[in-house]
Amino acid sequence: MMIDPNTPTTMSPRWNADGLIPAIAQDASTGEVLMMAWMNAESLALTLAEQRAVYWSRSRSEVWRKGETSGNVQELVGISLDCDGDTLLLKVHQIGGAACHTGRKHCFFYRPLGDSWILEEEPS
Amino acid sequence: MMIDPNTPTTMSPRWNADGLIPAIAQDASTGEVLMMAWMNAESLALTLAEQRAVYWSRSRSEVWRKGETSGNVQELVGISLDCDGDTLLLKVHQIGGAACHTGRKHCFFYRPLGDSWILEEEPS
Repeated sequence: MMIDPNTPTTMSPRWNADGLIPAIAQDASTGEVLMMAWMNAESLALTLAEQRAVYWSRSRSEVWRKGETSGNVQELVGISLDCDGDTLLLKVHQIGGAACHTGRKHCFFYRPLGDSWILEEEPS
Repeated sequence: MMIDPNTPTTMSPRWNADGLIPAIAQDASTGEVLMMAWMNAESLALTLAEQRAVYWSRSRSEVWRKGETSGNVQELVGISLDCDGDTLLLKVHQIGGAACHTGRKHCFFYRPLGDSWILEEEPS
């Protein structure tokens, strides 16, 4: 497949109807996908300014500096916007080794089984 | 950080107001995050049944069997649902080596520079 020579040279974040964009956090060293959360313009600006992941908490409707209470800060290693501007990918250094509020390394631990999704731990 | 012993043992997908859930596709062998797209209940069921990524195209309002026209099928290697049920992570085998509609391996190729985001190729 050829690379499209007409790919736009610049892109802007495309906020959804709520002014948010999904942000995927990936461990910069292991490549593991840690979590997905949301950012608004303010939290994205703070992420870039402070070089750490700052999300928008949809449940609390407030800026959420990841790790502010838990200590599990995500230091920013890199950030990119996707081809149509509607998703961010953060590469982070996960302080404390746990991205998930349950204390797990990452948030993706339910596997499909029949009609449900069951808790399945990664081999440690 | 301790792992929460009260983590629910089962989880269900939490669809948004449009009946959709974000689905991250990660290359199962390289760990690279390839793209993010959306699924509805039908496309998730088809993904599980056909063991390939089937998304919901928001622009075309139709089931989107990834690679159906381009040939760049994503064979399903694994799938998981996150801690609060609102994001899916797919590990895939990317046929054709290009997940992005621009012909690139993945979709995340804009980097922040000042107030804009500029096209930046990965070193090949």
